[in-house]
This record gives sequence, C-alpha cells and structure tokens, in this order.
Amino acid sequence: MDKNKILSWINYNELKELHEYLKKQNVVDIADFLDELDDSSLAIFFRVLEKEEAANVFSYLDNDARKRLIKTFNNTEIVKVMNELYSDDAVDFLSEMPANLVTQLLDKVDENVRKDINHLLKYKDDTAGSIMTVEFIEFTKEMTVVQALAKIKRVGIDSETVYTCYVVENRRLIGIVSAKSLMLSDSDVLIKDIMKEEFIYAYTGDDKEDIAKKMKKYDLIALPVLDVENCIVGIVTFDDAIDVLTEETTEDMQKMAAIVASDKPYLSTSVWEHARSRIVWLLILMFSATLTGSIISRYEHAFEVMPILVSFIPMLMDTGGNCGSQSSTLVIRGLAIDEIKFGDFFKVVFKEFKISIIVGVVLGIANGIRILILNRNPYLAFVIAVSLVVTVMISKFVGCALPIVAKKLKMDPAIMASPLITTIVDTVAIIVYFTVASHVFHL
Amino acid sequence: MDKNKILSWINYNELKELHEYLKKQNVVDIADFLDELDDSSLAIFFRVLEKEEAANVFSYLDNDARKRLIKTFNNTEIVKVMNELYSDDAVDFLSEMPANLVTQLLDKVDENVRKDINHLLKYKDDTAGSIMTVEFIEFTKEMTVVQALAKIKRVGIDSETVYTCYVVENRRLIGIVSAKSLMLSDSDVLIKDIMKEEFIYAYTGDDKEDIAKKMKKYDLIALPVLDVENCIVGIVTFDDAIDVLTEETTEDMQKMAAIVASDKPYLSTSVWEHARSRIVWLLILMFSATLTGSIISRYEHAFEVMPILVSFIPMLMDTGGNCGSQSSTLVIRGLAIDEIKFGDFFKVVFKEFKISIIVGVVLGIANGIRILILNRNPYLAFVIAVSLVVTVMISKFVGCALPIVAKKLKMDPAIMASPLITTIVDTVAIIVYFTVASHVFHL
Repeated sequence: MDKNKILSWINYNELKELHEYLKKQNVVDIADFLDELDDSSLAIFFRVLEKEEAANVFSYLDNDARKRLIKTFNNTEIVKVMNELYSDDAVDFLSEMPANLVTQLLDKVDENVRKDINHLLKYKDDTAGSIMTVEFIEFTKEMTVVQALAKIKRVGIDSETVYTCYVVENRRLIGIVSAKSLMLSDSDVLIKDIMKEEFIYAYTGDDKEDIAKKMKKYDLIALPVLDVENCIVGIVTFDDAIDVLTEETTEDMQKMAAIVASDKPYLSTSVWEHARSRIVWLLILMFSATLTGSIISRYEHAFEVMPILVSFIPMLMDTGGNCGSQSSTLVIRGLAIDEIKFGDFFKVVFKEFKISIIVGVVLGIANGIRILILNRNPYLAFVIAVSLVVTVMISKFVGCALPIVAKKLKMDPAIMASPLITTIVDTVAIIVYFTVASHVFHL
Repeated sequence: MDKNKILSWINYNELKELHEYLKKQNVVDIADFLDELDDSSLAIFFRVLEKEEAANVFSYLDNDARKRLIKTFNNTEIVKVMNELYSDDAVDFLSEMPANLVTQLLDKVDENVRKDINHLLKYKDDTAGSIMTVEFIEFTKEMTVVQALAKIKRVGIDSETVYTCYVVENRRLIGIVSAKSLMLSDSDVLIKDIMKEEFIYAYTGDDKEDIAKKMKKYDLIALPVLDVENCIVGIVTFDDAIDVLTEETTEDMQKMAAIVASDKPYLSTSVWEHARSRIVWLLILMFSATLTGSIISRYEHAFEVMPILVSFIPMLMDTGGNCGSQSSTLVIRGLAIDEIKFGDFFKVVFKEFKISIIVGVVLGIANGIRILILNRNPYLAFVIAVSLVVTVMISKFVGCALPIVAKKLKMDPAIMASPLITTIVDTVAIIVYFTVASHVFHL
C-alpha cells in the first residue's frame, strides 16, 4: 500500500482515484493499513470502500481499530457494515463491544441478520457454536448437478465458502458435496449420487479446540455443525480453525510460563491486566519455594561446617529445573497435538527413565571431573555427581508423569510445566543433595 | 472403523466386503487404523484399497507405518502407489527413505513423475520449494469460463486443489482465478475479466514458515510458488501450511525448553536421539550456573554469620526465573505470530518496566509480611522485600529485551527463553541479595 499516494488522495479529496486503487488491493492489507491513518482520514478512507469490501476489511480489523472506527462512524453506518458481515464475524465483533452498544446496533440491523446473530450469541465461548457461521449452501438430494450449480450462482456470493455444500432432508444433514465433485460431474447427475454420506461433523456444544484439531487432522476446508437433532445450523471454515489452533497454542504457552491465559494481544493488554495475570502464580510459586528454603534451614549445621556446599545449590536447582521442563514441555506439546495419549503413560515414563540415566550420568561425570580438577576433593565430586544423577532422574520422571496424569484428571496439562515442576524439583534436589552430603561427610 | 469386522474379513478372505466397506471410510481414519494391524494383515488390507485411495491413505501414514508397508510390499507395488501420489507427498516420503531405496524407486516410476520428483528434491528443506506440489490447474487469459470449467473437468481429478487456478502467459503467472468466481460467472465471460491480477505469491527459496504465516494471514487455500523468472512452478496448499505452523510452534517450544529442535514425533524418537538433543544445552546451562555458585562462595562470610540467609536463595532464584520466563514467553510468542515487531522494543520494555514495579512491590510486601510474622526480624523482611523488587524488575527487563534483540540480530528468539534467562537472572538475584544483605547487616 502506498501511504503517500493514499494520503494525498484523501487530502485533495480525489476519492474516485482512491476508490479505484483500493479495489485492486487485498482486504487484509487494507485492514493492516488502517492503523497508520488518523481518525479523520480513517473515516474518509473507510467510506470510500465498497459495501461488501468494507465488511470484508472490517472482519480483519483488530479491536482497537474497530473501536476507532465506531467513534467516527454513526450507528447507521456501522449497521450497514454489519448487514454485510458473515454472522461469525458479526458475533466476534459484538462480543468485544459494550452491552449498550450491542443493543443499539442489534435494534437497527436487518431482521434476519439480527435473528442469526442473536442465535449465535447464545453459544458459550470455546464451543463450536461460538465460531461457526450460518452462511452456507444447502442442496436437496434430488437436485441435479446443473441445478446445484445454479443455486451456487444464486446464493454463493453470500456464502462464506461454496467449496463444501450440504445436502439436507427435513433439516437433517444427510450428505456433503464438494465443489470439486460438482465441477467434475456431468450436468444431469443427481446430487444423491455424488454426495458423501460418511462425513466429519461436530455439535454446537463441542469444544472449539477439538473442532480445529479435527479439521486439521482431516484437512477440511469447512466442517458442518449440527444441533442436538442432527440438523445443520452452521459451518466452521478452515481460516477460523487455524486461528483457534494459534490461539490455543498461545494460551498453552502462557500457562506453561505461569501466566493466566488470555487471547488478547500482548500490546493491547493493559499493564494492570498483565500484572494481574502474572501475580497469582508468582505468589503461589514463591510461597512454595519457601518450603525449599525451610528444608535448607534444617541443614544449617552442614553448611556451617562446609560452606562450600552452598555454592552448588544454584547449579543443582537449575539443572533439575531444566531437565524437568525439557520432559514436561515435550509431553505437554505431544498431548496437545495428540501425538501422546494417556495409554502411552508407561511408554513415556520408561523412555524418560532411560534418557534420564544417560543425561544424568553425562552431567554427573562432567561436573565431577570439573570439581576434581578445581577443588581437588574426590568426595565432593562424588557427592555432586550422585546428587546430579538422582536429581535428573527424579526431575524427568516428575516432568513427564505430571502432565499425563493431569490430562487424565481432566486438568490442563499445560499447568504442569516448568515453573511448577521447577518448584517441586528444587525441593527434591535440595533433599537429595544434603542427604548424600550428610552421609558422605558425616555431617 | 470396526476392527473385529475388518479382521474377520481378512481372516476369511472376504475381500470384496472389505473393499466395499473401505470405500465408505475416510482415508485419514484408514491411515490411523493401519497401526492396529500386524504386518501380514496390513499387506492384505492395503492391497484391497483402490489405487487412488491407496495413494491417499499412504500420504497420511507416518514413517513407521510406511516402513512396515515397504517391508511387505515389493518395489513394483510401491511404485504404483507413488505414481498416484501428489508430488509433495512423494517427496515427503522419499526424503525419509534410505538413498538406495530412493534410487531404486525413482528408476521405476513413470517418466513424468520422476521428473517432477527430481525437480522437487532439489529444493532445500525449510523452503517453499520443499513443501509445494506441482499438480495445479493452468488457464490462459483468453479462455472463457465454460472452457475453463471443461479444463477442470479434464485435469481436475489429478490436481491437489481445483479451488484456485492460475492464469499463465509465456509460463509467467499473470493472474489467479478462484473456483468461486468461475462458478458465479456466466459461461461466456473471459478468464481475463474475472482473474485477479494482484495476488499473493512466494518464491521457491522463501522460508516455509513465512509462507505458512502468509497463507494464515490472507486466509488462502493455496499459494502459487514462482521461480526466479516469475514462472509458476508449484503451489502450497492450506493443509501443508497448517502442518508447517504446527511443526514450527513445536520446534519453538522445544528450543524454549533448551532442547535442540526436531520435527520427529516424541514416541518415534529414540532414547539416544532424545538424550543427545537435551544434553548440549544442559551442559552449557549447568556450567553457567556454577558461575552463580562461585559468586555465592564470595559471600561465605555472610552466611557463616547469618546462616538463615541461605534459606531464601531458592525463593529468590525461582521467583526471578519465573518472572523472567513470563516476560520472555509472551515476547517470544508475540514475535512468532507477528504481534510484536522490533519497532515495538521500547513500548515493550516500558510496559514490562511498569508491570515489574507492580508485581515486584506486591511480591515484596507479601514476602516481607510473611517474614515479619514468622521471623520477627524487620531488617530481614526489608532485605528480602528489596531484593525481590529489584530481582523482579531486572528479570522482566532481561526477559523481554533479549528475545527482541535476538530477533534483530537474526538469531532465533526462542533460545532466549526461560532456561537461559533463569541462569542469567539467578546470578543477578544472588548479587542483588547479598549486596543488600551485606549493607543492611554490615556483614
């Protein structure tokens, strides 16, 4: 997008040129570009777009840009855009707006749009219902291919996708037809002869992450969503599925870093919201870590006699934490992308057991040698090496087992990640270390 | 899939029933099911599939299943499957096979299949060329809609997607036409009047992650890939883009957990490979942590006088590490999904600065009060509270700044994650803590 050119068109009121230019641009790029305009240019710019294009651009705007637009637009103008939006985008927009604005807007939109939106707004967040759209194409099984193509020509422009169409009998979904098979079939073939009666579908109450995973697994462009009576009420398209997958991964990563998950972008989250979402876990983990501290206090006599023991505490704690978080990360991710299932519990634990022996021994020997050279104290080298091996083995066990167990208990495995594991492993590492040291040095 | 039914058909050699049954099943489910069969049933089962279906199933198999199939199949049978595979799937398969098998197979496949595969095998891993397929539909701009639809009918069955077609002049890509616009247009309209001349594309050498992100951003079903002369040589389809996004995220998470990244599934990675990919970073981090240890040694006199000081080390280290990893995780993820850019550096640092004040003060006060109650030592409470505030502030600064700087230096931001940050922050926490303590208690 050529910012100078656009600004000059706006300044000199050469809106026809702008209109022609924008018609050739990608709506996603136009949406991106809006961030660079001030409020008054933004309003002019947006008014120049054609009705349908405007709705399309609107669906790609982030919340900040939408709020800016709403400030400069009157409700009638917004309603015009809303009438053109796909129902899932309209719902997505409304769910972020203040309740009184939602009521005002809904009062003014077209009757059937209002009906669709009100229907969709009923579905809970995180369900298939909340991300589906109601603009899809229905056939009957007695239609011919040429009739079906004619129907697409008639209603296709308002459908979010025409690439999968749905065959319905008494409102029940009985088959699906891909545009590919329509295009490859002869005109007089009946829909019932090319429709697929075995198809993948979801229910409105299904978890949206499961839906997205299903669409990824089966490489679907769109997935039909049914109500309890097996009537088709909407579809989820692949672009929304990709967004859900990305969002869920981001939330997983946040949980794994001891942050209360949020789907709001980093930069548009306020300082207070950020602080709030981080403090909870920090407090819990901080007070758990004082447990490790109180265990250390029990060995005060040990490091009064041998102060050098204290200097190995960070290395042992960090290595334990790192080993545990390696295992937990791999297992949490494996569970998230369905590469690991609960049935693999013993396979995973046994694998981690073998890995931890190799890793533990290598680290133990490396550090033992280092201490032997630097401190010339074979007993100390032995204590550290043994503590390392045991710590690594316990860390890897805790790291791989807890997420799988959490999943089985219908908890979120992502919580069993590095911060929590580290806190647990720290305590273990300290106990192992001082126990071994006490025995070897008769403290 | 009904395992008992399938096994009984195989056992009683009722292959026609099996054939009919499988025709109705989803290829992805069939691919999944193959894992449950032993080698001899597997061979029978796979031979029952129709040629095209077999290739389709094959493209969804994981490497272990493919290797099992190859053991029971002779080369001629494998070649038959390969002739039916889309070129990207064939390349994907061959790139995991031993070189001598690849040569044998390539000798036997159809001339044009071999040409395509050899061409694709030349592209480097991680490039658009390595994930694209050559089966796409080309139009000329003078064709009418009805001619275009006729061409789709003729070659569509062998194209990975018919939903985006490519308009070519002297081998150069000059426009794209969606199946939607074809279906919505009248038969005698010319392709040049409905083609879009502004379109999103990539070059063969482009990074595959960038391609996938582009497809996500613009909601594309397929993306054309051009060579240096702007001739179209292949397309990338949305399902491959989703796989790339998932893989790259998994690799990011591995790097963030101090593991050398690999795209091999957890369970099919051997114990040795797992151990190797984890030991490198563990060794580096372990020896860096001994630095923290040697700094502690410098304060031996302090905790000889006040052994209780040692008991707060774990809490300070853990809290610092957790604070740092919260910030680094959010920033690394933000960078990965393009929500944060280098230009946001100061915005992010300033935001984290404000957050760290809030978080630091809350944690400092909470812990200060705890110590005041339990240890009845206001000086100690003061030392811990101040150390916490400073540690939190430094951790959050290091955590947010390093990933952005890494990105700017063309390094992978994911490496600047919790383990490395923790190691840095530990040292800082210890220095701050003992400096404050030494001053307050005149040690």
